[in-house]
Amino acid sequence: MDINKRYESGINVMEELFSKEVRTGMKGINDISPDLWNMIVSFGFGELYSRDIISLKQREYITLTTLITQGAFDQYKVHLQAALNIGVTKEEIIEIIIQCAGYVGFPKAVQAMGIAGEIFKQNE
Amino acid sequence: MDINKRYESGINVMEELFSKEVRTGMKGINDISPDLWNMIVSFGFGELYSRDIISLKQREYITLTTLITQGAFDQYKVHLQAALNIGVTKEEIIEIIIQCAGYVGFPKAVQAMGIAGEIFKQNE
Amino acid sequence: MDINKRYESGINVMEELFSKEVRTGMKGINDISPDLWNMIVSFGFGELYSRDIISLKQREYITLTTLITQGAFDQYKVHLQAALNIGVTKEEIIEIIIQCAGYVGFPKAVQAMGIAGEIFKQNE
Amino acid sequence: MDINKRYESGINVMEELFSKEVRTGMKGINDISPDLWNMIVSFGFGELYSRDIISLKQREYITLTTLITQGAFDQYKVHLQAALNIGVTKEEIIEIIIQCAGYVGFPKAVQAMGIAGEIFKQNE
Amino acid sequence: MDINKRYESGINVMEELFSKEVRTGMKGINDISPDLWNMIVSFGFGELYSRDIISLKQREYITLTTLITQGAFDQYKVHLQAALNIGVTKEEIIEIIIQCAGYVGFPKAVQAMGIAGEIFKQNE
Amino acid sequence: MDINKRYESGINVMEELFSKEVRTGMKGINDISPDLWNMIVSFGFGELYSRDIISLKQREYITLTTLITQGAFDQYKVHLQAALNIGVTKEEIIEIIIQCAGYVGFPKAVQAMGIAGEIFKQNE
Repeated sequence: MDINKRYESGINVMEELFSKEVRTGMKGINDISPDLWNMIVSFGFGELYSRDIISLKQREYITLTTLITQGAFDQYKVHLQAALNIGVTKEEIIEIIIQCAGYVGFPKAVQAMGIAGEIFKQNE
Repeated sequence: MDINKRYESGINVMEELFSKEVRTGMKGINDISPDLWNMIVSFGFGELYSRDIISLKQREYITLTTLITQGAFDQYKVHLQAALNIGVTKEEIIEIIIQCAGYVGFPKAVQAMGIAGEIFKQNE
Repeated sequence: MDINKRYESGINVMEELFSKEVRTGMKGINDISPDLWNMIVSFGFGELYSRDIISLKQREYITLTTLITQGAFDQYKVHLQAALNIGVTKEEIIEIIIQCAGYVGFPKAVQAMGIAGEIFKQNE
Repeated sequence: MDINKRYESGINVMEELFSKEVRTGMKGINDISPDLWNMIVSFGFGELYSRDIISLKQREYITLTTLITQGAFDQYKVHLQAALNIGVTKEEIIEIIIQCAGYVGFPKAVQAMGIAGEIFKQNE
Repeated sequence: MDINKRYESGINVMEELFSKEVRTGMKGINDISPDLWNMIVSFGFGELYSRDIISLKQREYITLTTLITQGAFDQYKVHLQAALNIGVTKEEIIEIIIQCAGYVGFPKAVQAMGIAGEIFKQNE
Repeated sequence: MDINKRYESGINVMEELFSKEVRTGMKGINDISPDLWNMIVSFGFGELYSRDIISLKQREYITLTTLITQGAFDQYKVHLQAALNIGVTKEEIIEIIIQCAGYVGFPKAVQAMGIAGEIFKQNE
């Protein structure tokens, strides 16, 4: 894949995942470090999320799980909405969190479920 | 679900996931602490893995991801084989690891891929 | 232990540990996922905290330590108050944090101590 | 406390916790970095473990918990033996691990229990 | 080094790193636990930061890296300003974060860069 | 930077950092997943390590610190040798570990120092 295509395909995935408002917020990174922004778009979304074999939904399963495990709840919030945007259901998200409970312990599972509750409400 | 059913359904899931040899090894925990063994079977496998909405394959996506993120590579090894046993393909596992690379960094992704290589070889 | 007894004994432990207000807050989880709520009460509190051999106080030593180590400071705050409620002294909590300093480093110890200071003030 | 007393009191605590063989192994650090060795003895054991209010046994509860949570199983092994040396019972150690299961997830609890089984056998 | 010198040299390093306002805030720890305060000043800053061979700037490289890796963003914020105070440039900080991206993943790198952006603005 | 240049510059950095033997070992990843291999070379080394503003030595300070913090000791071992190869001194490495001790706790610092001792011996 050439350089421009990577960036473009990253932007395409981001449009699928995030609302315009969220993407504008994310782009704040570009003002501080255009290079990191470029890496996020071209490598993060353009190379990783744009790959085949597993679907965008399955990638969000992985992303939500790793963010819960890391306790990275700010990014988790953003990807929770992204997951809903591309069709992961509320019920699936609850299952991801419950499955995580046994693997990362209750504290992170409870925090993840509380945040999910907020996001679900905003989507009603 | 009543107590005996939980245990039974845990044993059923474990038979689906793990070879007899692995299950015998796991049961070593029973000699040290029958209570922890009971929790693993009844709660871990009987309550968590036996739930609906998402499939056993999807649960292994979550399990592999959280184990890579935690750096819990001994358990990861066991679940890598389990994932293959229930039909997660080699190609899907590679995608899980690559998706993780962007979220947990290269060191854990490289270690996860190296272990996957070994397990793939044993399955040839 | 049968299913109802597990739930009941979980509720009993929670009443010992947490104020009515905190328990009401916690029960918000029940609105999002009754299953996770059930696991927290029946497994978390009913099976784990209700066990013998070590006391509820000793269990809170363990809980506070693991939460500091994980950097799970929201849950830590709740268990700090719980520890005080069941008779863990202010001085013991300070010792737990100081012992942790050598094992998890100063940043988490300092954050844990700052939060402890707030909770101590609320209890004066 | 003056400098020499800190070092001395660190050595005293270490003699209580660890066998001669283990202490000799630990002192290998002294050959690589006498300064780190000094910090471990004087600060780690001399300042932290020598404090009052909570007992040496309670400190080992904290140490074992934080090491399980971190997945630092090499150091955990050493402190498991130390805990047994100062009178923490096999049954208490099993309880620490079971309490941790709910807070850090099953993978680390299972690994901690497996190692405990080995150490228990060596102590028979 | 004798006890008083350690404390003094810790205070000196802290004056170099942190503004008067920040140091006053930090000293809140002293009201909760004078012992932890003493350890932070004498051991943390007096023994660790006051050592030779590597410079204060290089020590802040290490500190920022470990705090990003741990996700300890409150302490990271304080040390970001400290790094700027002793002459680490904005460009160097951006490089530290970008280097971390490959080792800890994008979520923590993005959060670190966002906070850096805020601190840079306050320093304009 | 175009695609081929990224790969080439990654290979160049890797030749500077790692012995032929180590590079051959690393390339095992290529047999399992040529895509991950490509990302490591082109993104990890070609994009991150090849940047200016901070030196390769400074990048290894960051790498060693994040690996110690994560407890990723297999990769740490490889980068310890890399650091020595490009001129980071034994004394500097000891300082990195000692600075980390205050931020990640003694268990990881001790393990890092023990491994450093082994690598130093192999380099004598």
